Amino acid sequence: MEVQLFNHTQLISFTTQVLHAIGHSAEDAALAADVLISADLRGVDSHGVARLRGYINLWKAQRMNPKPVIRIEHETPSTATVDGDLGLGLVVAPKAMEIAIAKAKEVGTGWVAINNSNHYGIAGYHAMMALEHDMIGISLTNATPTTAPTFGKQRMLGTNPIAVAFPTENQPPFVADFSTTTAAVGKLEILQRKNMDTPSGWIQDADGNGITDAHGLKKGGSLLPLGSDREHSSHKGYCLGSVVDIMCAVLSGANYGPWVPPFLAFMQPSAEQVGKGIGHFVGAMRIDAFRPADDFKRHMDNWIETFRTCEPINENQSVIIPGDPEREMTQERLNGGIPLLMPVVEDLMDIGKTFGVKL
Amino acid sequence: MEVQLFNHTQLISFTTQVLHAIGHSAEDAALAADVLISADLRGVDSHGVARLRGYINLWKAQRMNPKPVIRIEHETPSTATVDGDLGLGLVVAPKAMEIAIAKAKEVGTGWVAINNSNHYGIAGYHAMMALEHDMIGISLTNATPTTAPTFGKQRMLGTNPIAVAFPTENQPPFVADFSTTTAAVGKLEILQRKNMDTPSGWIQDADGNGITDAHGLKKGGSLLPLGSDREHSSHKGYCLGSVVDIMCAVLSGANYGPWVPPFLAFMQPSAEQVGKGIGHFVGAMRIDAFRPADDFKRHMDNWIETFRTCEPINENQSVIIPGDPEREMTQERLNGGIPLLMPVVEDLMDIGKTFGVKL
Repeated sequence: MEVQLFNHTQLISFTTQVLHAIGHSAEDAALAADVLISADLRGVDSHGVARLRGYINLWKAQRMNPKPVIRIEHETPSTATVDGDLGLGLVVAPKAMEIAIAKAKEVGTGWVAINNSNHYGIAGYHAMMALEHDMIGISLTNATPTTAPTFGKQRMLGTNPIAVAFPTENQPPFVADFSTTTAAVGKLEILQRKNMDTPSGWIQDADGNGITDAHGLKKGGSLLPLGSDREHSSHKGYCLGSVVDIMCAVLSGANYGPWVPPFLAFMQPSAEQVGKGIGHFVGAMRIDAFRPADDFKRHMDNWIETFRTCEPINENQSVIIPGDPEREMTQERLNGGIPLLMPVVEDLMDIGKTFGVKL
Repeated sequence: MEVQLFNHTQLISFTTQVLHAIGHSAEDAALAADVLISADLRGVDSHGVARLRGYINLWKAQRMNPKPVIRIEHETPSTATVDGDLGLGLVVAPKAMEIAIAKAKEVGTGWVAINNSNHYGIAGYHAMMALEHDMIGISLTNATPTTAPTFGKQRMLGTNPIAVAFPTENQPPFVADFSTTTAAVGKLEILQRKNMDTPSGWIQDADGNGITDAHGLKKGGSLLPLGSDREHSSHKGYCLGSVVDIMCAVLSGANYGPWVPPFLAFMQPSAEQVGKGIGHFVGAMRIDAFRPADDFKRHMDNWIETFRTCEPINENQSVIIPGDPEREMTQERLNGGIPLLMPVVEDLMDIGKTFGVKL
């Protein structure tokens, strides 16, 4: 498929100007653009600038507030609950993570549950904010209902990702960032563009039969929890997605389960609400609240070197350390540019025209 | 297979007396017995009294200290690192969880990383200790290396379970407790006793080929991470198992990865050590550090009722709430007794004879 290359600074500048044009402060617009383009740099194209239109549509539908007053509703020395005032998750989550980091500085760990937010980009961005402080970073979010629980037919959970980042000494940091479904929506989109079927075990139809139609979700189907089927422990993926949902929303006061407002503005949120907006949960743990940071980082290096040199099944495919592929992709795209598919480029051009911003 | 039924109080009394006979204080022996038999009550037979011989063997091999002086090595208001003094995890982990709960009372959350411990029974026991305090409980442990990372041949991780418990109002509590592999060792043992093969996607042989021989681990094979293969996202199970390993051991100063000392006393721990004993990580989060506990518990009830009534694929198999099967099993076994396989009964008889304790 044809692509056009863009420098990341060009995309950040464009996104910043567009978000500013729809009412964000210069500071918030720049922060959100940084989070959004970090996804493109890391190769998570489904969560990058291609979603700018989606955020604009939420704003048009008055489901996103470009001037949020982010407020701590309740706090203790190690916790806070934050009301995101229906702002972009791209803005709300990094600010909540700053609160978590500040609390960790004071009492060892900081944990922030966030309600009344919107889609927050890649989970890993927020977790990685902890690294420069020699802290472990954790980031969870709930999301548009797409996923059936084990034995169920209905879409009850989102892809509900988990990100955890550990600092290191000389090795690059360990950054795990993954959905709790077998495959995330972005993987389906790639297959749709190529007119390919999915492997079995990724999705089911509206009756709960396993299917391989990459367009199956649009026809009432569901994603399957990590594990795919009961025999391969999909109940564990369902547990994980549920834990993320509860931490992000039942704990924060956001919408949970089937009530989570969908990211796509043309899909109506359910009339009934059980909380405010969507929910996130972020945490920071100071390493030296447990042991000297240098000791931990030295052992992390050893952990990584040990796993990287694990004997591979196929000599052409060594064992991967979480975060390695995204880091390599970032290096490649910082140097060579970010390839955007032509439909995405045309969409951005159109957005640019609407708001008088040059791509 | 023939079984004999035992009252749970009988098994607790027997286990307490045996552990006391090998040197534990009466108090520690009773605590360990309570943790151990809770596994039998919950139907996790692989982690219950059938393992008593294993713990005794560790003591004989001088790899378990029956008189541990459990010590806080380092702490902050919300964290502690605990040296378990090579005690039973069955004793060390509940005491560490008490520390986490006490810290959560003070500053909202408490997190304890534990080194120099041994096998701690079922992860769920320790997480569930938080429930009566209106707290969320979390419990992780690393374990005997049995599991290959995605693309790898060697056993680098244990089954590294995750347990999370959420309090509720009128519904029974939500208790997730699961290994981060597709199948845990206990599942293999059941198939071995029945002379049955495993489903595909559970294990691989020493060369990394998928196999279905339930005895495959004894022949140098490995368990597979949750997800089973790359196409079904085994890298996510590998990430989860790795995060558990790092939180439990790199953070606490215990052995990690392939250095984790095996539970089976006849397997020699590696001569080189990168830390002390095996590691756990437990946490407690006070609900009202985020929102009023009554609000949370009311919404948890709604979450549970909503998921339980999700339209099922098969009308004879409704959607399960994490913790339901174990709770139902507990009720059944509290009333009707705990069935033990005859080889387990004979082994316990033999242990009883050695230590002058009547089963």
